[in-house]
Amino acid sequence: MKRLINFAVIFISLLTIAHADTFANDMPSHGTASLMLIVERESGSVLVIESSTHTLLGRVTGLGNLTHGTIKFSKDGRYAYVIGRDASVSKIDLMTLNVVKQVKGGDDSVGGVMSQDGKYLALSNYSPGEVRILDAVTLDTVKIIPAVDEITQSRVVGLVDAPGNLLIFSLMDSDSIWVVDANNKDFSVVRKFQNVGKTPYDALITPDGRYYLTGFLNSNEMGILDTWDMSVVRKISTINIKNSGEAGTTTVPLWKVPHLKGWAIAGGIAVLPAVQREVVLVYDTRDWHLIKEIPLVGTALYTVASPDNRFVWVDIVGKNGDIIQVIDLKTLSVVKTFSPGKGATHPQFTSKGNSAYISLMDEDKVVVYNPVTFEKRREFEAHSPSGIFSTERIHKFGM
Amino acid sequence: MKRLINFAVIFISLLTIAHADTFANDMPSHGTASLMLIVERESGSVLVIESSTHTLLGRVTGLGNLTHGTIKFSKDGRYAYVIGRDASVSKIDLMTLNVVKQVKGGDDSVGGVMSQDGKYLALSNYSPGEVRILDAVTLDTVKIIPAVDEITQSRVVGLVDAPGNLLIFSLMDSDSIWVVDANNKDFSVVRKFQNVGKTPYDALITPDGRYYLTGFLNSNEMGILDTWDMSVVRKISTINIKNSGEAGTTTVPLWKVPHLKGWAIAGGIAVLPAVQREVVLVYDTRDWHLIKEIPLVGTALYTVASPDNRFVWVDIVGKNGDIIQVIDLKTLSVVKTFSPGKGATHPQFTSKGNSAYISLMDEDKVVVYNPVTFEKRREFEAHSPSGIFSTERIHKFGM
Repeated sequence: MKRLINFAVIFISLLTIAHADTFANDMPSHGTASLMLIVERESGSVLVIESSTHTLLGRVTGLGNLTHGTIKFSKDGRYAYVIGRDASVSKIDLMTLNVVKQVKGGDDSVGGVMSQDGKYLALSNYSPGEVRILDAVTLDTVKIIPAVDEITQSRVVGLVDAPGNLLIFSLMDSDSIWVVDANNKDFSVVRKFQNVGKTPYDALITPDGRYYLTGFLNSNEMGILDTWDMSVVRKISTINIKNSGEAGTTTVPLWKVPHLKGWAIAGGIAVLPAVQREVVLVYDTRDWHLIKEIPLVGTALYTVASPDNRFVWVDIVGKNGDIIQVIDLKTLSVVKTFSPGKGATHPQFTSKGNSAYISLMDEDKVVVYNPVTFEKRREFEAHSPSGIFSTERIHKFGM
Repeated sequence: MKRLINFAVIFISLLTIAHADTFANDMPSHGTASLMLIVERESGSVLVIESSTHTLLGRVTGLGNLTHGTIKFSKDGRYAYVIGRDASVSKIDLMTLNVVKQVKGGDDSVGGVMSQDGKYLALSNYSPGEVRILDAVTLDTVKIIPAVDEITQSRVVGLVDAPGNLLIFSLMDSDSIWVVDANNKDFSVVRKFQNVGKTPYDALITPDGRYYLTGFLNSNEMGILDTWDMSVVRKISTINIKNSGEAGTTTVPLWKVPHLKGWAIAGGIAVLPAVQREVVLVYDTRDWHLIKEIPLVGTALYTVASPDNRFVWVDIVGKNGDIIQVIDLKTLSVVKTFSPGKGATHPQFTSKGNSAYISLMDEDKVVVYNPVTFEKRREFEAHSPSGIFSTERIHKFGM
């Protein structure tokens, strides 16, 4: 009970300090189609940048604990939903940069997703392990789906929206994948797949919404669910390449759990981070066979395809954590290794790939690159910036 | 000279009547990420609908001759550019629905495209045959590229933007494809491909920006340019299937020239309209071999993949012109044939495919379908509606 009261006190404090610190008093109205929102993890704030002109619109503060902050958007691009590690959910009006609503959506959250129809914001919570469904307009909780499989209450990871207005997620502590039908008012779990692999850590849905792919911390496999059939989670190997060389077999410390996102897929090729190995794994998405392992200078946190599907930018974490490596999908080889600055992370392309935004977490900057010439276009001051979220994600499954 | 004066008079008239006829006096501010703009071809007006809630925001009138009206958007989603057949270009503020600028961009235009960097609006003009480059902010003409090949001045078709900030287009009367570098201030034509096929009628760029595909009125082939190499326009057959049956070989009247758009591509499959034949052509986009011809009840105007890449909706024109046929990409067969109403045309999905908007040109209505259940969700009155343009197109090459 004391804990609950503490939470309430902290949360009321959050509410009172939440406000928009806009840099211009008379902010012009702006379209919301090409905004970039950048999480400032230590200060619990978010920067809002108009990326077609690279103009800073303002900073929104008082958003809770953003050490694993995630941002989702309403379908019309009017509102952003900032989800904190403390499961605080702040709804920001992107026209005024005001926080118009703030709730607690649990105790410990690692993210969320908008349903395909845009009506619901679903949270993937660690503790208590659950998926919590909020009404996207009111932020009222409309359903809690406890991630309880027999006796284990599991942390929820890899929550995505899928075609047919489904939600799919993985249960980290009970090696399962569940499917929820968001068309039903009771958000019933319509499928449960068990023993899919040991300790799911994250998942992605391919950009076409067809394949749900889960990564495991303790299996040399990944799991693939074809949502057209929704019948079986097929296991695919992560280490069956004979001539991958030394990099392919050596394991290194787990600096950070990799992230899986749909932007790892481009032109029928999936380029995925490997767990505790200094390679990326290249799959053919038609049959999901492993084509190649490509050695890196460290371990991959993110793999992000450029919108023209020609290159994949690999965000290295831990050893050589300041480095970004660029893979050419024509030759399936690294063609560029560069350091944008200290703690470089979370590359995010503008739509059509004209620019790439990168957070320099340990330099308090966000830098903008021309991804063709690698010239720096612009930089912005930012407090420990981490995740970068473009409003273009509205249109993409699992984003 | 007299003609010029006539044009000037007509154009000044247009300017004076251009205004927003908003249906609500106190229109709320709205995000612009999920707007649908619908061309009313006979009245020279455009409806603006917020598609996440299916709410009519207003009608913008005085937009010139929209019998072949096309709409493009600024990268930030703040402005729409309506391009008339008379080459009138009207810049609409999507926050207020006011026309903020209007110019003549030539005499006879069939469309346009935004450059990858969002700085330029390029028009594809029939007469005089040219590509005209306008500054996207001011609408000033910054360059005219006459489509003159030796002696022929050609109509321009199939204009797209491509990765690397290129513009690619086809010359209908001189069987050529040209590539312009929009990074150069002089918009130099950097490549010219000749004898690509007889009478190009339209073209598309694949969603990944890699392949430029041109259709021909007078060749049993299509032309493919791989922009990664930019070396040769390869010809692929449109009629080499042995067992296509009667539908595959019979030719019918050319009711209307088909349209080619990137949404014909889904999951490594291209489903393309055939010219004067009651089939769609199904290609494998890895090597562009013709997998199958699928018989239809008429000829295809548009082929539009659902955002989940599972289905392609085929807009039939001419005979059975009220029909939409739906192809399942799993089985490559028609799974649904239905008539939304008279003159049904231009299906346009909302992002993630939750709804499909269709114009009923001969019923003065726009209808909104649930594309899974085929239930009608909503309908709107509209004056001879034709093209439907979602702001999601901002993020897509060639749209």
